[in-house]
Amino acid sequence: MTGRLTLYIGTKAWSSWSMRPWLALKLANAEFEEVLIPLREHGTTPALKKLHGAAKVPVLHHEVNGQNLTVWDSLAICEYANELFPDAGLWPEDREARAHARAAAAEMHSGFAPLRKNCPMDMAREHPGRGLDAEGVAADIARIEALWAEARSAYGAGGRFLYGRPTIADCMYAPVVSRFRTYQPELSETSLDYVAAVSDWILYRTWEEAAVKGV
Amino acid sequence: MTGRLTLYIGTKAWSSWSMRPWLALKLANAEFEEVLIPLREHGTTPALKKLHGAAKVPVLHHEVNGQNLTVWDSLAICEYANELFPDAGLWPEDREARAHARAAAAEMHSGFAPLRKNCPMDMAREHPGRGLDAEGVAADIARIEALWAEARSAYGAGGRFLYGRPTIADCMYAPVVSRFRTYQPELSETSLDYVAAVSDWILYRTWEEAAVKGV
Ligand SMILES: N[C@@H](CCC(=O)N[C@@H](CS)C(=O)NCC(=O)O)C(=O)O
Ligand SMILES: N[C@@H](CCC(=O)N[C@@H](CS)C(=O)NCC(=O)O)C(=O)O
Repeated sequence: MTGRLTLYIGTKAWSSWSMRPWLALKLANAEFEEVLIPLREHGTTPALKKLHGAAKVPVLHHEVNGQNLTVWDSLAICEYANELFPDAGLWPEDREARAHARAAAAEMHSGFAPLRKNCPMDMAREHPGRGLDAEGVAADIARIEALWAEARSAYGAGGRFLYGRPTIADCMYAPVVSRFRTYQPELSETSLDYVAAVSDWILYRTWEEAAVKGV
Repeated sequence: MTGRLTLYIGTKAWSSWSMRPWLALKLANAEFEEVLIPLREHGTTPALKKLHGAAKVPVLHHEVNGQNLTVWDSLAICEYANELFPDAGLWPEDREARAHARAAAAEMHSGFAPLRKNCPMDMAREHPGRGLDAEGVAADIARIEALWAEARSAYGAGGRFLYGRPTIADCMYAPVVSRFRTYQPELSETSLDYVAAVSDWILYRTWEEAAVKGV
């Protein structure tokens, strides 16, 4: 029951939402085709509307047993990947750690609007300080730092990722790592260590390389 | 392994985020204590900060085997309830319907900012038309109507809820039902039927009754 997976994503340098399920699918060792819809172009909105009613990327198509399933939200695609590849350990195995990781992922999914708006992902570019003074941004960053520190100290088991080895929670926060590298707020030692760990992650680097090349 | 569950919620008339996991826990027939933190009062912010670093309701505490677990986000609490009560059918049983339901829930979790901002939940009160002209609100409502219709026609199995019987997806959209009753946009027949079904749902009515009484 694998079938054929196609992930529709946006321009890699900007599409923070697309990066997350792409990382999760790669983490699960899934084979999938990727189709890029360039954002901020004349044809973007019609292309997104044609893709799905929500008119946003990412979107996952799964062709299996002659049926065609569409999953149109980044977090839902991560959960779906977890269902398709239950042995990949996309969430922490421990129930308590898993609940924490899901809360961390869902907080990212619904929150941090000031950071997202004022410091949009602009991968591998540097705009030190830009946007950091806007209302709410410092509080968002402080909350993210506290969350990262809590996850790593309670469940990190001495590893450098939030729950030891990489999970969906790291996929969800990878775009924040990219933002921190671009806008360069002052961060604690432990946050900087996490930023370094994610930036060195082979999957992060693969996405970033493509983002720089614009493919 | 049930332990002791405590759900911290905000003022019921306004706290759309609190309503969701409350409905999901009730739907699972979970026994839990509920603790209300009044919103928009002098002491609200300190109380929320004391409760959890994210400084928001809802928050679920689970005391089990001498351990204390905190889940601090509405969607994550719903997923946790699904893990604690796997036989309650909180998500649709069919894998395809479940993926659709999770996408619907996650789209709600991260989206519809114009509707949420301009038409905040104000349970059992009527403000016909207010906020509906604001930018983005009509598009949000159109998207929600399309999503509801799609879920019901593809997976509703002739039932009146999104996936036949009530699931977490209905818990996530119940606050939208409340908004539609308050602000009264023009809706399709099928949307009106769904609004009526949710409004008649005993769990919805129980929450609403308490909201009206202010308890
Ligand atoms: N809830 C969605 C949100 C996705 C989203 O907002 N995607 C952006 C790009 S990163 C988008 O497609 N925006 C529409 C546009 O750029 O025109 C998800 O998590 O997948
Ligand atoms: N991601 C959170 C968001 C919760 C949220 O924004 N809650 C609101 C109340 S409905 C809140 O506590 N706001 C802080 C305040 O009112 O001071 C969740 O889904 O639980």
